[in-house]
Amino acid sequence: MRIIATIKDVAKLAGVSVATVSRVLNKEANVLPQTKLRVQDAIAKLHYSPNLLGRNLRQGATKKILVLLNTISNPFYSQVVRGIEECAAKEHYSVMLCMTHGDPVLEQQSITLLQTKLVDGAVFLSAEQEGTALTEACRGIPVVQACEPRDGFLAASVSIDNKKAAYDAISYLIQNGHKQIAFFGASDTLSSSICRKDGYLQALSDYELTPNPDWIIEEGFSINAGVRAAKRLISCKELPDAVFCISDSCAIGAIRTLVEAGISVPGDISVMGFDNAEISKAFLPAVTTVQQPRYEIGYKAASLLLDAMRGEENRAVKITLPHEIIERNSVEKHT
Amino acid sequence: MRIIATIKDVAKLAGVSVATVSRVLNKEANVLPQTKLRVQDAIAKLHYSPNLLGRNLRQGATKKILVLLNTISNPFYSQVVRGIEECAAKEHYSVMLCMTHGDPVLEQQSITLLQTKLVDGAVFLSAEQEGTALTEACRGIPVVQACEPRDGFLAASVSIDNKKAAYDAISYLIQNGHKQIAFFGASDTLSSSICRKDGYLQALSDYELTPNPDWIIEEGFSINAGVRAAKRLISCKELPDAVFCISDSCAIGAIRTLVEAGISVPGDISVMGFDNAEISKAFLPAVTTVQQPRYEIGYKAASLLLDAMRGEENRAVKITLPHEIIERNSVEKHT
Repeated sequence: MRIIATIKDVAKLAGVSVATVSRVLNKEANVLPQTKLRVQDAIAKLHYSPNLLGRNLRQGATKKILVLLNTISNPFYSQVVRGIEECAAKEHYSVMLCMTHGDPVLEQQSITLLQTKLVDGAVFLSAEQEGTALTEACRGIPVVQACEPRDGFLAASVSIDNKKAAYDAISYLIQNGHKQIAFFGASDTLSSSICRKDGYLQALSDYELTPNPDWIIEEGFSINAGVRAAKRLISCKELPDAVFCISDSCAIGAIRTLVEAGISVPGDISVMGFDNAEISKAFLPAVTTVQQPRYEIGYKAASLLLDAMRGEENRAVKITLPHEIIERNSVEKHT
Repeated sequence: MRIIATIKDVAKLAGVSVATVSRVLNKEANVLPQTKLRVQDAIAKLHYSPNLLGRNLRQGATKKILVLLNTISNPFYSQVVRGIEECAAKEHYSVMLCMTHGDPVLEQQSITLLQTKLVDGAVFLSAEQEGTALTEACRGIPVVQACEPRDGFLAASVSIDNKKAAYDAISYLIQNGHKQIAFFGASDTLSSSICRKDGYLQALSDYELTPNPDWIIEEGFSINAGVRAAKRLISCKELPDAVFCISDSCAIGAIRTLVEAGISVPGDISVMGFDNAEISKAFLPAVTTVQQPRYEIGYKAASLLLDAMRGEENRAVKITLPHEIIERNSVEKHT
């Protein structure tokens, strides 16, 4: 049986009224010092904690912000979340994470935390429902999007230009002598999936190269997705001379699968990743990739959320941070 | 300016009393069907959400459980959290994560969520404060430990036997002809850090091998920790013929650093990891490691927490799940 002290127990032990205990808890001035000490002593003896559900109800702020993300298994997110945490901490907000696992129902459950004021605001690192549904669900609630802005979701956003970043990656491959370029992407509705594929197709088109449809393989962002995509590629009649992957995890799964099949990377096929995750630098060969300023994306998103929570109307703000090609050892240079 | 509808606004628009709106919200029977429809219509028009802070105060359950963990950047945790989520979902609990980043103050802030009933219970995947302080802080609150049981923290726990697992890893290295074995560990106070080092020392002692103090290098669990540890090892007068690492991330950082320095893995030095993280299978060479049943640890911990939330007294329960050596390509076999 759990025995939890109530404010009445504290009042009884201290020999004062409940109203007096309440005044001490709320740090009001009109309490005699010796009474205050008696109440504090009773609180300590009984291990009493004020029920903050009631307290928040009166004061209207929880000092908590929620971060919604697809999964913590994608190493991309940890630095974004760190940026959010460090910005939020400046104003004494702490951060809680909820995962959606690609499920709109789980997303909606988390939005309920916002609607019912259990948290003060949220940063969406991914979005599962349609933009208009999200706009409706988050009406009157401070929210911000980061990394994966969803079309039609009326909330400030911070991200890189995913289409331009993919375009630049393909241009880099082409400028280093590659013309037969495959794309390992994802068939979900995340903006990064859609925009990076658009950038790939646009770059090929601008360089007057025709994409081979067999080489557009959409298995997802994970290491295992890269393994599956590479297996499908290996079974094609013709092989490309380079592969652009939607994430570093995907690139690593692809490289290990190609190498296991006796295909040298980058000797036979060059492989390029995306994100500049920690593992892309550690992998053998180290993976040439596109860096996103992950910490800065998170920090800026939290900063916009703090503005929104102070009542600033910033839902139309769209911030694009710069990306950068990181040259390592997984792309052959034919110059 | 944010305009948020209150229960009074709903009552006014529906032309009923606040008490009637409250009866509709609480699904009580004594409301006429046409009145109920008018209230529901007003709720929809005003986008009214009942403030659940008040609701929870009355009903006493949030259907949320909290998972405290050091960092989401350690890929080890994602499957543990998945196990917790899937078990909790069976009883309609959802999971929120808070990170401690090794900071007892952040841990205490999260414990406040428990003390103030904003969540119904918690699983500690790591612990920053002393065990006795945690026992005190979590008095009367359902809590469970997983992965990293802390001495003196009176809460049910689920983990592998970290000492035995490290002992078995060292025995495996010795049985494959290695006698000069280094240890890359962590100098923190996590039970895995302490127990894995104990297992390493115990195995060497049982096989009558003397540990070289220069080869016990405690930089931590991350890839970068492995890089730092390997750099320190390379600067030693003598090199070992095997390294046992406290995590797969550490092993990967170590392998890439040794290989970059012209030391072949496993040709010159064998490297063994711990955890069987996804990357240990994908890395080149694939990393021989110790598997923890991560999903099962999380699932079982959540199951114990649900028991505790139903009032079962299980604080003394200690569950040890089996570990397993996974043979891959980073350890040379001299047999």
